[in-house]
Order: sequence, then structure tokens, then C-alpha cells
Amino acid sequence: MEIQRLPGFRDFYPYEYAWRNYICEGWRNCARSFGLVEYDGPTLEATDLYRKKSGEELKTQLFRFFDPGERDICLRPEMTPTLARLVAARERDFKKPIKWFSIASFFRFEKPQKGRLREFFQVNCDLIGDSSAAADAELIALAVAMFRVFGLTENDFYVRVNNRTLWLDFIQKRDIPAERLTEFLAIIDKIEREEQSATARKLADFNVTWDEVQAFLQTPAEAIPGFEALAQELRWRGVAEMVKLDLTIVRGLDYYTGLVFEVFDRQRQNRALAGGGRYDNLINVISDGAVDLPAAGFAIGDVVLQNLLQELPHTRTKAEKSLAMSRCRAFVIIADESRRPEGLQLVAALRENQIVTDFSLQPIKVGKQFQMAESVEAQFAVVVGQEWPQVKLKNLQQREETTVSIEVLINLLKS
Amino acid sequence: MEIQRLPGFRDFYPYEYAWRNYICEGWRNCARSFGLVEYDGPTLEATDLYRKKSGEELKTQLFRFFDPGERDICLRPEMTPTLARLVAARERDFKKPIKWFSIASFFRFEKPQKGRLREFFQVNCDLIGDSSAAADAELIALAVAMFRVFGLTENDFYVRVNNRTLWLDFIQKRDIPAERLTEFLAIIDKIEREEQSATARKLADFNVTWDEVQAFLQTPAEAIPGFEALAQELRWRGVAEMVKLDLTIVRGLDYYTGLVFEVFDRQRQNRALAGGGRYDNLINVISDGAVDLPAAGFAIGDVVLQNLLQELPHTRTKAEKSLAMSRCRAFVIIADESRRPEGLQLVAALRENQIVTDFSLQPIKVGKQFQMAESVEAQFAVVVGQEWPQVKLKNLQQREETTVSIEVLINLLKS
Repeated sequence: MEIQRLPGFRDFYPYEYAWRNYICEGWRNCARSFGLVEYDGPTLEATDLYRKKSGEELKTQLFRFFDPGERDICLRPEMTPTLARLVAARERDFKKPIKWFSIASFFRFEKPQKGRLREFFQVNCDLIGDSSAAADAELIALAVAMFRVFGLTENDFYVRVNNRTLWLDFIQKRDIPAERLTEFLAIIDKIEREEQSATARKLADFNVTWDEVQAFLQTPAEAIPGFEALAQELRWRGVAEMVKLDLTIVRGLDYYTGLVFEVFDRQRQNRALAGGGRYDNLINVISDGAVDLPAAGFAIGDVVLQNLLQELPHTRTKAEKSLAMSRCRAFVIIADESRRPEGLQLVAALRENQIVTDFSLQPIKVGKQFQMAESVEAQFAVVVGQEWPQVKLKNLQQREETTVSIEVLINLLKS
Repeated sequence: MEIQRLPGFRDFYPYEYAWRNYICEGWRNCARSFGLVEYDGPTLEATDLYRKKSGEELKTQLFRFFDPGERDICLRPEMTPTLARLVAARERDFKKPIKWFSIASFFRFEKPQKGRLREFFQVNCDLIGDSSAAADAELIALAVAMFRVFGLTENDFYVRVNNRTLWLDFIQKRDIPAERLTEFLAIIDKIEREEQSATARKLADFNVTWDEVQAFLQTPAEAIPGFEALAQELRWRGVAEMVKLDLTIVRGLDYYTGLVFEVFDRQRQNRALAGGGRYDNLINVISDGAVDLPAAGFAIGDVVLQNLLQELPHTRTKAEKSLAMSRCRAFVIIADESRRPEGLQLVAALRENQIVTDFSLQPIKVGKQFQMAESVEAQFAVVVGQEWPQVKLKNLQQREETTVSIEVLINLLKS
């Protein structure tokens, strides 16, 4: 029986890989332009790392097992606990604020469906050691830039922000203990997707009515402490128009303490494109009190983003143009087999100059070699024949032909 | 208790990540220059994929478990079975020869030690659909180029090649059945590391003497069928001097059928730097006979390579120079806080032009801002102050200063 790929996992043939690379390189360039530097952690972590603060939903989705040494371990379902571990272990070695990003794959045992797979890529961007509105705004501006880099505009996506402390105030004013915040937020989190009657029933457990919650959801931005400072920082960065206050945004993970935000496409055809927020206590918890640093960050997944980029004609066109660029630059055609040694030396010289070069491994007719050149979509054919030590250079798009020395050839192809 | 990293796994802080990126980008550019295109597979595969042909040693090192859906799965220990699966599933979609590479992480449950970790990166390069000596030589030339790209020379490393069919002939001439080849090769594989008496005892099981094997190991290259064709192809590619015939090289994996080779450092201070060979039957086995294509490939791991690059002064210097290049290009200094909005607009404009730009999130004294610029090793400081809408541009290495418009600034910093 033929062996199949596991459900929820992907094979990246060259076309699929080119898409993945397009997305990851867009993220990488954008994060670097904001002064973030790249890091990574291991693919496997001790299960304990996720026990404390990752939230109930995530725990049920872990790829968890015991290694041959009887360690309880997990394929990482998210990056933030690893980042907190790294920072806690060596925070003194780095000037604050620490501005780091990573691009890595993650694993969750979920039912595979549109926008959800069992292995997916995420960019994670974090800013550690600064608890100000400027830091929050900087992260939101970076998140916005990370969608714009693919040609998405304000017509295509927007950011919904909230602050969890608002809900903490809300429950505390009603004498609900702070320990029940997570449980309460789980109800708010589902408010858009669930029947009103179901939500009302769950709220009743807290002695809170549907109407109270609805009224609170209408709180105007002006009435929210600290929102104006954030709004001003967002205006300065030219992204205020992209951001909308929305008190239903609470995020599913336990570790968020303040700002939370999610990015959605305007058509709401897809799940959230990104999510993040402030987690000022996580490093403290992970380091068992040894290190205390405010922190905030967000993640964008590749699956939903790629769906959106492929659905929208303008972003699809932009992507396809970029994917086509990484093809063969020079195809060396050996027109005279007695020149094969010189032809192969030329191939080696071009490659040493980082010029993408191909040729036929087997001696075949010149016409067949030109067909191979076309099939790999080479930009130029370089013909090694009677002109040696010069060669004929043919531009395969424009059908122009010149005879040049090797030195001139290398300079032409490098530019 | 503080949560620790698992043994045999690595954290990639920015400096460690920069090294990893240096190695992976070197591999990537080199593979592309040879006309290979990038692909990838999933991190997890069904255990069955490794059952048939990966060899006994690998099987004992698997990170193997049952997922919550009771599937018997593995963290991939190597790439070749995944590649064979991909090619078998869609070979008609791709012109031959298929020339693919991938850079990915792999997992083996081994005792962590110098050059061996439980998660490591490998580049895999394969050439499928061509069984000629030209294809074998092309792969060896690519392997050599992939070490040269880091500044390693013929004084630092060399390639040991062999052909497994020689040992198949050897045992068949002695009436040992072909099915016992794997078992026999396991003895040859260890011949350099084991006591002569232990080897001799194992050979006795096959009715073969130590002297017979020693005599066979001295077979001159000229006496080996097909070796001259390979040698000629290697000479044409300028790499013949890097390659040495060595009949003790047999590789630990069951699937190799012809050429096998390994790359070593000249000082032999490290384990093999790379290994590969021809596996003409594997795609057939994986596809249960549906697809039959000759194939060859090799892999280079990052752990041993990085050790070598850090041990040798010339390759270490070259790497450190390259690592330093990815730092901050422009640090925007807000000399007049009333200009913060304009300053942040400038930051956004620079970043949109892919210029790595940083600034102080908090309003601090100009002198402190210059200190921050130095601490992130910025090349330029851009001072936003009374000259607005012009800015002062300071080269922080050469201490030169000019006043320029934003347009000129962007063009200067992009170049």
C-alpha cells in the first residue's frame, strides 16, 4: 500500500514552497525593517511549559507524548511560552526593550478544516521591557505593516482592539472574584458565534444579564482609560484608521493581562488573521518569580493569510509575479560536444558568482537543449561552440543575441 | 521550579540564530545557483514510511508516538523517504531530471554529544530521473560548492566516494546471498572504529578473512568499472582533486544502491560533514511499484559544519563579518519632542522602503538616543529637529554629517 501524508499536514512541492517562502520572506523583511531581530527555540518543549498559562483549549490540542527517556514532552503549539523561557534565562544579556521575532512551525491536534491545519507556520513578534502605549502601538503598526507588505489595504483588513482590564473591572464591580476572569472571558469570546440564549444562561451563573453585557459593549472609546494615549500613538504611526475598539475581543489564552487585538479581513470570510496582546506576568510565572518584565506580542499564521491572498485578485496577482522571479538565469548550451569540458567550467564559474545556472547533463541535440532552457524558464541561453573563448548570449524573452567574453558575460548576468 | 530546555535541543538567541541563518542562506544560495528548487514536507510522517528502507540504526532513534487519533507517527529523522513519497505521488507533473533541495529540521533520539543533537538542521539535495555518472558528479560538485561557500578550501575538507555494487560483487563471488549485503556492510562501516579482532570475528561469520577484505580495500581506482567515467565528469567540474576513492565508505542507510560518498574535514577532528549516494530503488519501494525512477542525493547537517566553521580561524572570521551585516541601518533621533509625529511618520516611510529603522519609543534626551543608536550598532543617525522638513544625517562610523530632504535621505539609505 502506498504511504500517505498524515491528515492536516502539508507537502510543499516547489509551487507551494514558493508561496510559503513569499509569505515568510515578506514577514521577515517587514519585521527587520522595524528593528526586530530573529530568534528561534526548539520544536519540542517540556509539557510543563504550557501547563500554567496557555489556556484550556490549547491543552486539549497538544501533540503530547513521552520520549524514549520517559520525559513528558510536546510539539510546540505556540511560541510565547518558549520566548518567555528564553528571556527569563538570559534577560541581563540584552538591552531593553528586547525586540525579537521568529518564524517557525507549530502543531495542534485539531479537526483539519478551512484555515486550520495540524502543522502551520507563524511569525511571532514581541516587544519586551516596555509597558507603554507607545509599545502597544508599535506592535499594532508592525502587525498592520505585515499585511500591507502583501498588497492588502485598508479595504481588505482591519484591527479590533480591546483591553482585558476593562472586563476585570466589570466583574470586580459586580463582586465576582478576579480568579474567575478566565471563565468569564470564555463567554465573551464566544458571544459572536453563540446563540443569545446560551450566552445569557452562562452569564446568569455570574449574576450578570445579557443587557448589562450589551450595554458595556457599547462603551465609547473616550470613556476608556488609556485609550486616547494609544489612539494618539496609532495616529502618529498613520494606522489609527485601521483600528477599531471592540470589547468582544478577549483572546483564548490565559496569559494576556492588558491590550488584546485581532486582525480580520473586512469581508469576514476568514477566521482571525492575527492575534496578540500584552502579557506582563508570563515571564514572571515561567521563571518562577526570578524575572519580572512587561511584554507584548502577536502572531500571524500562514494558513488563513494565504487563503486570503489567494482569494483577492490584487494580492494574488502581486504574489504570482513575485513567485515567478526566482527562476533560472542562464542555461548553458553545449553546441559542440568537444567543448563540454569548457562548458562545464563556464557553468561552475557562473554558479560561483551566484548566478542560477543550468545545463543538460546528457549530450543532446542543440534544439533539445533550447527546449530544456525554455522548460526551466531560463532568462538567457549561453551557447558554447565555435566562438570559444567567447560565447553567444541569447535573451530568451526578447530573442536578442550577442557574442561576448566570459568576463563580460558574468558581469551582464550578475546585474 | 524554572522550566528547562530539553537535553539535545537548542535555543537560538539572536547570535545563535544569525549563525544558523548564515549557514542556511549559504546552502540556499548555492543550491539555487545549481538550478535546484526548494521543497519541503511535513515535520511528522507515518512510521511506516521509515520501516522499509531506513536501516536498523535509524529505527532505534525515532521520536515515535501515537497521536490522539491513534496513528503511529514519527518526527522525521531524515528527508529522503519524504522526498520519495512526494515524487512518487506526482512525478508526472515534473520534467526530468527533477532537481530539488530542502532545508529543514530533523529529530533523532541519540545521546547528545559533540556534533550530535536530538534536533538538527539539514540541507538535502537530490537529482531524480538520471542514473548517469554525470548526475553523480553533479551532486558531488554541488556538495563541494556547499562547503566552499563558507570559505572552506581543499586544505580543509575532502570527499570519500565508493560504490556499494563493489561489495555486492565481493560477497556474491563468495556465494554470500545478496540479502545479507546490509548485514555485511554494517561490518565494513565500522572497520575504522572497531578493533581488528572484533571485525575479523564478524567477518568469519561470512567465511571471509580480514586479509581478503584488506586486499579488496586496496583495489586501485582504475580497476573499478565506471570509476573513470565519474572521474572524468569530476575533472570537468574542477573537483576531481577533492575526491578520493575509499572502499570503507558504505553509509548506514539500507536504501543506497550504487554511489555512496561522505565529506570529512582534513584534520578528521569531526564526524562526517555530509553523506549521500544513489538510491535507485527507493521510490519504487515507497510507491509499492507504481513509480520507478533512478535517484541520488546527499545531506549536510548544521551541527558538525558549524563546529568546523567555528574551529577554523579563516572560516570563523568570514562568518563573523557576515553576521555583523544585518544590523540597524537608520536610527531616528527626535531632537525636538514637538516633532514626534513627524519623526514617527519618517520612521514609517523608511520602513516602507525596507530600510531597517529604529528609534526610542520613549521621549528621552538626545544624548541617550545617540547611545541607543550605538547600542543597536546603527550605521546612520537621522536627527529630526529644527531643520524639518529636512533632517540631519550622521554616518556613525565616519562621523560625517549632512542635511538632506526626506526624498534624498530615502535614496541614500536604500543604496
